[in-house]
Amino acid sequence: MTPIRINFQRLQHDIEALSAIGRDADRGIHRMAFSEGDLAGRQWFRERILEADLDFYEDGAANLHGRLDWDGQRPSVMMGSHLDTVPGGGPLDGALGVLVGLEVLRTVKESGLPLRHPLEVVNFTDEEGRFGGLFGSQAVAGQLTPAMIHAARDLDGITLTEAMAAWGLDANAALFARRPRDSIHAYLELHIEQGPVLDRGKISVGVVEAITGLFKWDVQLKGQTNHAGTTPMDMRNDTFQGLAEFAGEIERILEEHGSPHSRATIGRVELKPGAANTVPGYTSFSLDVRDTDPDTLTNLADAFRRTLSTMARRRSLMFEFEVLSELPPQRCDPALVQLLEDKARALDLKDLRLPSGAAHDAQIMASLTRTGMIFVPSLEGRSHSAAEWTNWEDIERGANLMLQAILSLATESGGELK
Amino acid sequence: MTPIRINFQRLQHDIEALSAIGRDADRGIHRMAFSEGDLAGRQWFRERILEADLDFYEDGAANLHGRLDWDGQRPSVMMGSHLDTVPGGGPLDGALGVLVGLEVLRTVKESGLPLRHPLEVVNFTDEEGRFGGLFGSQAVAGQLTPAMIHAARDLDGITLTEAMAAWGLDANAALFARRPRDSIHAYLELHIEQGPVLDRGKISVGVVEAITGLFKWDVQLKGQTNHAGTTPMDMRNDTFQGLAEFAGEIERILEEHGSPHSRATIGRVELKPGAANTVPGYTSFSLDVRDTDPDTLTNLADAFRRTLSTMARRRSLMFEFEVLSELPPQRCDPALVQLLEDKARALDLKDLRLPSGAAHDAQIMASLTRTGMIFVPSLEGRSHSAAEWTNWEDIERGANLMLQAILSLATESGGELK
Repeated sequence: MTPIRINFQRLQHDIEALSAIGRDADRGIHRMAFSEGDLAGRQWFRERILEADLDFYEDGAANLHGRLDWDGQRPSVMMGSHLDTVPGGGPLDGALGVLVGLEVLRTVKESGLPLRHPLEVVNFTDEEGRFGGLFGSQAVAGQLTPAMIHAARDLDGITLTEAMAAWGLDANAALFARRPRDSIHAYLELHIEQGPVLDRGKISVGVVEAITGLFKWDVQLKGQTNHAGTTPMDMRNDTFQGLAEFAGEIERILEEHGSPHSRATIGRVELKPGAANTVPGYTSFSLDVRDTDPDTLTNLADAFRRTLSTMARRRSLMFEFEVLSELPPQRCDPALVQLLEDKARALDLKDLRLPSGAAHDAQIMASLTRTGMIFVPSLEGRSHSAAEWTNWEDIERGANLMLQAILSLATESGGELK
Repeated sequence: MTPIRINFQRLQHDIEALSAIGRDADRGIHRMAFSEGDLAGRQWFRERILEADLDFYEDGAANLHGRLDWDGQRPSVMMGSHLDTVPGGGPLDGALGVLVGLEVLRTVKESGLPLRHPLEVVNFTDEEGRFGGLFGSQAVAGQLTPAMIHAARDLDGITLTEAMAAWGLDANAALFARRPRDSIHAYLELHIEQGPVLDRGKISVGVVEAITGLFKWDVQLKGQTNHAGTTPMDMRNDTFQGLAEFAGEIERILEEHGSPHSRATIGRVELKPGAANTVPGYTSFSLDVRDTDPDTLTNLADAFRRTLSTMARRRSLMFEFEVLSELPPQRCDPALVQLLEDKARALDLKDLRLPSGAAHDAQIMASLTRTGMIFVPSLEGRSHSAAEWTNWEDIERGANLMLQAILSLATESGGELK
C-alpha cells in the first residue's frame, strides 16, 4: 500500500505566495514581529486556514492556530514554527515549518482518517526577537511574567505593549495563552538546519536529538594605552595580544572540556583607542559558547574563566565579564527521535541525527510536552539571508516525513508511540 | 671652574606661561597647527625672542626662528622642535625642546662667549600632523612639493592653503623655506621620550642613536560569515581566528627577524558583521611595525607577509593588505651621539643610548645635516595627554646637557667635534 503523501504542488504554491509578503526586492524579507509585513503574513495565513475549512484560533500572545478535529477535550498533537523573519531574512526560516504543518493538516483532513488526537498548527509570535524572541512559545509554555512583557522593547525603544496596541492587541493577554500540560500530546517542528552539515553530507533530513544551550559573555580586558613606537614590547600591557592568546586557546579548551557538538565563537571585538599607532589599553569582546549537554557547558564555562584569568594575570591585565545570556540545552524526546528515524527509513530517506545549534520554539515547548524536530538542508548553510534556500525535493521529503510522524502520533491507524 | 648653566627659573617660568596658552581646563592643551591656540603660542614665542634681544625670523613655512650672532654667512648650529600639540596634548611634547633652545640662546648670549657659529632655535610648523605632520622641517629640508602642499588637509577637510590664508600666510611660500645644505653646521633636538624606558630605569637623559622607521599596513581577511550555533568548528572560515593566530606569531617573528628595537602593534581591529552569534566572515586590522635598521624592516615585512599568507592558505581565507605609510629609519650622527654622551658624563648625569620610537623633526633634519637628539623621561611613559609630565630636575639636567653640547659645537672655547 502506498503511503499517503502531502500535496507538494499546494505546499510549493504556499511557499512562493508567502515569500512575496514583506519582500524588499534586493534585501530579503522583512516580517519582523508586528511590522506591516508580519501583519500581512498573518492575514494571509488566517485566510489559508479558513480556506482549508480548519478552525482558526488566536490566543492572547497573538499566536495563530489552525485546528483539525478540535474538541477542547483531548490533548492535541501540535506542529509549529514562526512566520516572522529577521530584517532581510529568507523565505524558509520559520515559515517552512508553519506551512508544512498547514499542509499536513489539509492532507490528513482530506484523507478522512479518524483522529485519536486533534491536530494543531501554530504560528508563534516573535520567534526571531524583535522584542526578545521566542515570545509566543514562552507564552504557551507559561514562562512569561508581567514584568517580562512590560520590559520587552525593540532596538528603537518601541515597547511590545505599544507595538501590539497599534494593532488592537493587549500584550498582557499573553499571560492567558498558557496551555495546561495535559492539553498537548506531543510537539513537532520542521525547520531549516541553518548550518552546513546536511548540505555538505548530501543528507535529506536531520533528526534533532537536542537543542544546544548556550552562554554568552561580554568580556572586558583593561591594560595600558601606549605609543606603538616608543613602548618596548616587554613593557606593554596590550589587551589585544591578551585576547589573541585567549582566542588561540579555544581549540584546546573545546578538545579538553567540550564535545563534538561544542561551539565557541568570538564574533564582536572592540579595541580602544583603536588607532594603528597605539597599543590598545582596552579590548572588549563577545564569547558565545554552545553545547547540548548542561554539564559540558558548565565545564566549558569553568575552563574559559580559568584561561582568561591565567592569561590576564600573566599579562598584568584586569578582566571582567558579564553574562549576557544563558539558555539551558533541551533534549528532544528519545521516543520521538526514534519514531522520526524509523519513519525516515521507511520513506527511504537518507537521515542523520544531529543537534540544533540555533534556538527554536521547540526548545521552549520541550518544557511543556514531548518534543521532536526535523531539519531540512540549508544550501551552503545559509540562513538569515535573502540567499537562504533548500532544494524543493528535500522540502517535499521533509514534509512527507512530518506527515508520517503525525499520522503515527494522531490517527487510529498510526503506529503507537512506544 | 664651574660650567655655565642655564637659568632654570626662567625656563620654568616659560614652560608654565606657555602651557596656559590653548589650555582647556580638563582636556589638555589645544594648539593644533594654525588654530587660535597655535597662533597665540607663536605670538608669545615671538615676544620672548624679541624680549631676549635675539633676531626674529619667520620663513615661508611659518617656522619661527630665534637667532644669535646671525650674519647670513657662517653655518648655524640649530636647535628645534615644535610648539603645536595634538588635540588635548600636554605641556612638554615639542614645546620643551623649543623653550630649552630659547633658554640656551639666552644663556650663551649672556655669557658673552665668542661664537664660531651662529645659533638658531626653530619652532617647526605642524609637526603633530593636523595637515600631515613634519611640515616645517620638511620645508627646511627641501622635501616638499607643490602637490604635497596643495593636497594637505585636516580631518574636517580644511586645506592647509585655506588655514594659512586665514592668517595671511601663503602656503606655497613653504617652498622657499628650503635651506642650503651648507647653511647648517648641526641640528640638535631635545624632546620628551614619550615612552617608559628612562622613567622605569630612573635615568635622567637619553641619547638617541636612531629614529625608527616604520611601515603601517591595513590588512583585510575574508572568509565566511556563519551562524555561531549551527556551524561546526571544522566547517568555519573564521577570519578573527585567523587574526588571532597571526597575532600570536608576532613575538616569534620579532625574535627571529627583528632586533631589540623592533616593535609590532595591532591597534585597530574591525569584525563584520560584528555580532556575538555570528562567525565573522570579514576582519580588518592595522599592523604598525618599527625598527631602527632599514634591512631589519625589510626582513620583518617579508616575514609578516609570509606568515599572513601561510595562515590564510591553511584557513581558506583571502587576504589583502594596503601599505598605509612607510618611513625610513634615520641614524643620528655618531660623533654627535658620542659628544652628548661625553657631556652627560661630564655633568654626572645617568644616561642611556636608546632609539626614538616616535617620529620627530630631527629625522627630517637628518637628511640635511648632522643630527642629534636628547630625551628626557616621560613619567610612566605618558604623552599626547594632559597627564604628560617630566620632573623639573630632569628638565633642568636635559637643558644643561643641551647647553654643554651647543657650547662645544658653536663657541671658540668649546671642544672641537671629532
